[in-house]
Amino acid sequence: MRDPLNKTIREVKPSGIRKFFDVVSEMTDAISLGVGEPDFDTPWRVRDEAIYSLEQGRTFYTSNAGLKELKEEIAKFLDRRYSLTYDPYEEMLITVGGSEAIDIGLRAMIDIGDEVLIPQPSYVSYEPCTILAGGKPVIIELKEENDFRLTAEELEEAITDKTKLLVLPFPNNPTGAVLERKDLEKIAEVVIKHDIFVMSDEIYSELTYLDSHVSIASLPGMKERTVLINGFSKSHAMTGWRLGYACAPKEIIAEMLKIHQFAIMCAPTTSQYAAVKAIRECDKEVAEMREEYNARRRYLLQRFREMGLKCFEPFGAFYMFPSIKEFGMTSDEFATRLLKSKKVAVVPGNAFGECGEGFLRISYAYSLSNLKEALGRIEEFIGELREEM
Amino acid sequence: MRDPLNKTIREVKPSGIRKFFDVVSEMTDAISLGVGEPDFDTPWRVRDEAIYSLEQGRTFYTSNAGLKELKEEIAKFLDRRYSLTYDPYEEMLITVGGSEAIDIGLRAMIDIGDEVLIPQPSYVSYEPCTILAGGKPVIIELKEENDFRLTAEELEEAITDKTKLLVLPFPNNPTGAVLERKDLEKIAEVVIKHDIFVMSDEIYSELTYLDSHVSIASLPGMKERTVLINGFSKSHAMTGWRLGYACAPKEIIAEMLKIHQFAIMCAPTTSQYAAVKAIRECDKEVAEMREEYNARRRYLLQRFREMGLKCFEPFGAFYMFPSIKEFGMTSDEFATRLLKSKKVAVVPGNAFGECGEGFLRISYAYSLSNLKEALGRIEEFIGELREEM
Repeated sequence: MRDPLNKTIREVKPSGIRKFFDVVSEMTDAISLGVGEPDFDTPWRVRDEAIYSLEQGRTFYTSNAGLKELKEEIAKFLDRRYSLTYDPYEEMLITVGGSEAIDIGLRAMIDIGDEVLIPQPSYVSYEPCTILAGGKPVIIELKEENDFRLTAEELEEAITDKTKLLVLPFPNNPTGAVLERKDLEKIAEVVIKHDIFVMSDEIYSELTYLDSHVSIASLPGMKERTVLINGFSKSHAMTGWRLGYACAPKEIIAEMLKIHQFAIMCAPTTSQYAAVKAIRECDKEVAEMREEYNARRRYLLQRFREMGLKCFEPFGAFYMFPSIKEFGMTSDEFATRLLKSKKVAVVPGNAFGECGEGFLRISYAYSLSNLKEALGRIEEFIGELREEM
Repeated sequence: MRDPLNKTIREVKPSGIRKFFDVVSEMTDAISLGVGEPDFDTPWRVRDEAIYSLEQGRTFYTSNAGLKELKEEIAKFLDRRYSLTYDPYEEMLITVGGSEAIDIGLRAMIDIGDEVLIPQPSYVSYEPCTILAGGKPVIIELKEENDFRLTAEELEEAITDKTKLLVLPFPNNPTGAVLERKDLEKIAEVVIKHDIFVMSDEIYSELTYLDSHVSIASLPGMKERTVLINGFSKSHAMTGWRLGYACAPKEIIAEMLKIHQFAIMCAPTTSQYAAVKAIRECDKEVAEMREEYNARRRYLLQRFREMGLKCFEPFGAFYMFPSIKEFGMTSDEFATRLLKSKKVAVVPGNAFGECGEGFLRISYAYSLSNLKEALGRIEEFIGELREEM
């Protein structure tokens, strides 16, 4: 029998996070600081709205692009939070999480051989989805000395005449880095000068701890060349609901909608009704969760300083990205030894790109008591390592 | 500014069903026989299970491939209903409806230029998803004189040395045609002889009215070359939940899982918990809905005969596919005039492929009282047309 598979998919490696957690899942007494999702249940009033919609029998398809009411609420939210003006009927599409939006955005925009600039360390989907869309991923290595921000110089160096799109993943998973308005303005200038497009993945936009998030799409001349990706998973603790959205110029949304219509049909109906409630009435719950994350973030930062673990201060998402270069081993080795000897699971930084080598992703989407226990063990572990050295 | 879009997506036309229903949605007093989804609410005990899972706070991601418990129940269901033996851990993947399974199956298997055989009339996604995966759709025109069954001869004629995959869409949307074991055996022989693969979309497998559904994957030598697509939308009236699955040899599932992991993450969590209940305890509700559809099917068939509208007897899904060739107009013209003069909406047959020209898709996923009213109006309409002739 011949090979049933396509050649491209074979080149794509499975996620490195997943690989590591297959080991973790077999250990019953390990503490994990590994998972990239909120530890909070979805706010009750959101679940209650979902329950109401199920009782009412709202179990049918919605329109392909999503519930009108939800799109209208999202438009209002984007306006009040980020000064973004999107037409909910023509410039917006409700998707199965931010994940689907990334995938269909790339499929709608990338021709075979187009170069897609992907700053790393970053979320694991951009590179494989680019490859699957026929594009060529071009990695921009973000630097620790820049607090893992993308600089306009790094961007300009990476642009060739084949460059079509820049993926802009800030606030960043796994580093927690954010870009401020002044960073974005310089990046926008380069983007416009070279006539390329931006896919701005702002899924952590509600989780910033210094200033409010700024969207690159709100800068002059940028809305027309940006696909904005966002959703409810991180801000509203709604990962399992699989609900996100894309905003973009109407001609891009029209083509993304075509793919969505044939490949997905519509986002889950119950989740859409629940999300109307989430976005309309849950600013308070979102703020409370943000406060809680911030307290944990400050705790971790202080503990890292006490134990002499080098880490820049991240102002977004719910991750810390400390360096373990002083211990003279790879991220994989460090994470594996930490797991074996102290039963604490963290993700090796190189799971998010080669330039993440020498770092660890530590999620603080865990309770403070869990974090305290885990940090105690990490402190013991690096104490032992230093004695060995 | 340069063109933001990829070239391929521009070739893909939006769904013809959608186009037609944009008109319908503006008419408040039209009766629609157009939509392809059950008119029943999801059975209460399924909704109740979803409510329970929300109360319990099960709002997190599941594993990428889907809940273990759900996969185990699906494996049992496929065994008891269709004598299919699938390993739930390695040969199964939970997807966002059958739609996602079709899309990622094609993306995992099709290389650029591979030919994909698509019998038409059939569901609107196969052709665009093939094009988006880089494949070349090769249409096999199903014939009214064969009751729209695919014959082994038609299949063999269409195969070239570039053929990789046959899409097998039975029970069929829009014709209602089914394939029986003897039809499938002849098709399997050709498939094996030419060493091609089958994507068998069996989403309507629980809705057959003559014999029980037979899956081509249950025939000797076929499991290893079949991607089986199924789900809960039609059988359990769960369209809005977006829950389907794919079963295939483990090396195909592994690659589909990679795409799913990066492009979707996991199917909606609440839907997965609800589906465990649906598949474990709702055989009775499924049988009741089937009985109701069957009563409507027989009613429509009788009414068509009375009014002299030519239609073969369909034994699957919830559609009739009468011919309107005698009236000397296109399907679009007929449907548009019917909508305007009698306010009854049906889908022109050519929305499902050019060879659907001259036919209408009439859905009987509507209450008997709705069907009676609509059929009365259709009878009036064709009476008037015959007087004109």
